[in-house]
Amino acid sequence: MNLVDILKELDIEYNGKDFRVSSFGTLKDANSSQVAFLNDIKLLDELKTTKAGAVILKEKHVELLPSTCKAIISTNPYLDMARMSGYFAKKPFVNDGEKYISDKATVDKSAVIGDGTIIEEGAYVMAGAVIGVNVTIGKNTRIYPNVVVYDDTIIGENCFIQAGAIIGSDGYGYAHSDSGEHVKIYHTGNVVLEDDVEIGANTTVDRAVFGTTRIGKNTKIDNLVQIGHNCELGISCIMVAQSGLAGSTTMGRNVVIGGQSAAGGHLHIGDFAQFAARSGITKSVEGGKTYGGFPLMLQKDWLRTQLRMIKYFGTKKK
Amino acid sequence: MNLVDILKELDIEYNGKDFRVSSFGTLKDANSSQVAFLNDIKLLDELKTTKAGAVILKEKHVELLPSTCKAIISTNPYLDMARMSGYFAKKPFVNDGEKYISDKATVDKSAVIGDGTIIEEGAYVMAGAVIGVNVTIGKNTRIYPNVVVYDDTIIGENCFIQAGAIIGSDGYGYAHSDSGEHVKIYHTGNVVLEDDVEIGANTTVDRAVFGTTRIGKNTKIDNLVQIGHNCELGISCIMVAQSGLAGSTTMGRNVVIGGQSAAGGHLHIGDFAQFAARSGITKSVEGGKTYGGFPLMLQKDWLRTQLRMIKYFGTKKK
Amino acid sequence: MNLVDILKELDIEYNGKDFRVSSFGTLKDANSSQVAFLNDIKLLDELKTTKAGAVILKEKHVELLPSTCKAIISTNPYLDMARMSGYFAKKPFVNDGEKYISDKATVDKSAVIGDGTIIEEGAYVMAGAVIGVNVTIGKNTRIYPNVVVYDDTIIGENCFIQAGAIIGSDGYGYAHSDSGEHVKIYHTGNVVLEDDVEIGANTTVDRAVFGTTRIGKNTKIDNLVQIGHNCELGISCIMVAQSGLAGSTTMGRNVVIGGQSAAGGHLHIGDFAQFAARSGITKSVEGGKTYGGFPLMLQKDWLRTQLRMIKYFGTKKK
Repeated sequence: MNLVDILKELDIEYNGKDFRVSSFGTLKDANSSQVAFLNDIKLLDELKTTKAGAVILKEKHVELLPSTCKAIISTNPYLDMARMSGYFAKKPFVNDGEKYISDKATVDKSAVIGDGTIIEEGAYVMAGAVIGVNVTIGKNTRIYPNVVVYDDTIIGENCFIQAGAIIGSDGYGYAHSDSGEHVKIYHTGNVVLEDDVEIGANTTVDRAVFGTTRIGKNTKIDNLVQIGHNCELGISCIMVAQSGLAGSTTMGRNVVIGGQSAAGGHLHIGDFAQFAARSGITKSVEGGKTYGGFPLMLQKDWLRTQLRMIKYFGTKKK
Repeated sequence: MNLVDILKELDIEYNGKDFRVSSFGTLKDANSSQVAFLNDIKLLDELKTTKAGAVILKEKHVELLPSTCKAIISTNPYLDMARMSGYFAKKPFVNDGEKYISDKATVDKSAVIGDGTIIEEGAYVMAGAVIGVNVTIGKNTRIYPNVVVYDDTIIGENCFIQAGAIIGSDGYGYAHSDSGEHVKIYHTGNVVLEDDVEIGANTTVDRAVFGTTRIGKNTKIDNLVQIGHNCELGISCIMVAQSGLAGSTTMGRNVVIGGQSAAGGHLHIGDFAQFAARSGITKSVEGGKTYGGFPLMLQKDWLRTQLRMIKYFGTKKK
Repeated sequence: MNLVDILKELDIEYNGKDFRVSSFGTLKDANSSQVAFLNDIKLLDELKTTKAGAVILKEKHVELLPSTCKAIISTNPYLDMARMSGYFAKKPFVNDGEKYISDKATVDKSAVIGDGTIIEEGAYVMAGAVIGVNVTIGKNTRIYPNVVVYDDTIIGENCFIQAGAIIGSDGYGYAHSDSGEHVKIYHTGNVVLEDDVEIGANTTVDRAVFGTTRIGKNTKIDNLVQIGHNCELGISCIMVAQSGLAGSTTMGRNVVIGGQSAAGGHLHIGDFAQFAARSGITKSVEGGKTYGGFPLMLQKDWLRTQLRMIKYFGTKKK
């Protein structure tokens, strides 16, 4: 779709040159058919050298734009990005075209496979599973019944995706208008599950807003776990049932997250860190230690604190 | 089914006049083909003026009944209501009759649509979705794969229902016999999602026991959230992943509920209230403030309390 | 498959006699076509009298083996058991053979029924449900849309399995290599739901590693609950939404588990115990009392402790 037409529909003023827009990109990576946006003044340096075709930005930043790049002036660039994002989202789960299913794969006749999807040898897609567009299901991977795999997901070899798991659902991201209305940001990133990953029943893994939500090789996720958009898990991590990660949190290898624990967004967890059940991970932490509590502390400190607190306040006499 | 036959099967004594019963109703709203019940003495005034065909009630309240209304005498009206409720429940998800699907809607051929259901123009019902009886799916609404929408649900325009979400499941309501047995109360209410609502992957929204569970316009619900029967959410609310609401809790507009938070039942939350992650909402609260902790307090009080408590008890020396 | 071939593929040294292995068994119950393993020195007495065809064990325990039983010597018997377990797992959800569906049962034409499965009279399997191999669905039981029931599950009479629930998914069990890799233990046990059980929407119940995960008669489970492998619930228990049980925890009758509560593994909960919302059940407890908090205590003690703690630390002046 052409930029001028999109902006006209959205009632955004624009006097620059028209061009056909393919999608959004980041200031750093966008090409001349893409639109980027400036929402964070830490990125001003990236603005100066962006190769994007156009950038949504505040008026005061226009002078920093390279001459090759058009300005879409906005009082709220993040909101206008959200409003534009729907124009670049393709229709999902289209399944009436060609697929690439190995002769040595098994696909139940009630499973639905999206266009352009590749299912490699030895893979087994069971009844009622719905696989989106341009997905890859690696060798010997099992997709259990009624799993949903959204468009553009890549699943490695020897993975187990237990029944009802949802891989690649839209992340939970909105811009907010002045009147308190939430405007959906269409998520155009994807999910990558590396080899030997297991995903538990009814667990949900959100796609990235841009880029990739990644789960490292040999990582094992239990049932009813939530993994937010743009998270990255290293190899051989463990997440026990009903735990969750908010968006953009990353972790190293062999991290263990206990049941019903949760981490806030944009944190980093070091290699071999362990978290007791119900940990509330409120900050980034170094690896190799065992944490617990909420707010987060070392697990041994949490235990000592609780026991002393209970002893002090919990006796009847007090 | 006729009242005398139902009561005979349930071994409930009844000497009144027979009539064909259509369903349960409340004392206030029931008509002459409906049965109501008196479980709460606060409703004695409503009993005196009820237009129900019959009321299940204790013997001592019979004298308050209008002359038009028959008495079904019970030592435990709530339990006998539960035992009767199955007789009024229709067979769900019947799908061999007529549907009303707009020429401009898209319904995947593997989706199953219930009888009497209306799917409006621009709506997109994806693979494996199962839509019940007498449902309305509004204009341009997207139902992602393997979503289940129970009978009688009404979904507005421009909604997104992510994969695996369940809309309209039976609420968790039972009566209890003297011997500790739980007797299912068949839920005959429904769910209404207003326009611009988003429901996350594998989230569950229970139907009302009677009446409606309602989610207001522009409200956005994340993944793996539980919304109990008869809850009512205002416009532009936010509920982050793995949070939950027990039955009959209501909230105003632009309420924000953090991840893994939960509210007890029958509470009210005021406009623009915010709840930090993991809040345990143990009481009704006024709007415009930020709460946290469990039991619930102002978030700043929770933070101060925790920090002081950890400082006091958490040091090694103590 | 023959033992020698399996061990060769896994690169495990073995000089004993070959035989055709049917499956794993416990030391106590295995027969001569089964392999057992010794992972716990508390079971040394069972080792001495085992009737298993072979046992995986450390070299120092070989001398205790009965003469009828072959030794598979391993430095890590649990890991080698995990590595072997995949050989005994049958291909799941095969559905092109014979089924046994009562003339008086209703099965939606989009539901998929596994081979050897029995669906009794009055049962209603709704659209999109996927039932595995050798399952029994009892009389008048309702399986709502898009439910998945794994192989070998037995469901009693008059049960309600709400939409999206997953019954019999693989438990979360792995052995760990010296280099920190997790090796899947294929779960070959099953799930039994007794009569009058209700399972909420998107709830997950894991199959046992060996043996049975059992939910007692009249027990009612709410939405988004997690029940780990080998748990056993008594009759008429209640588990409210978003609660969870780790593996092998057992409970008596009429236990009530509040919303978002969770229990650790290998615990026992006595009859009529009640747990407030968000209880963290960190130990086995006797019945008939009401508990709360995390770590777990009597609910009245938790309340007193919290109120005093908040009073002491929460005031602004301090």
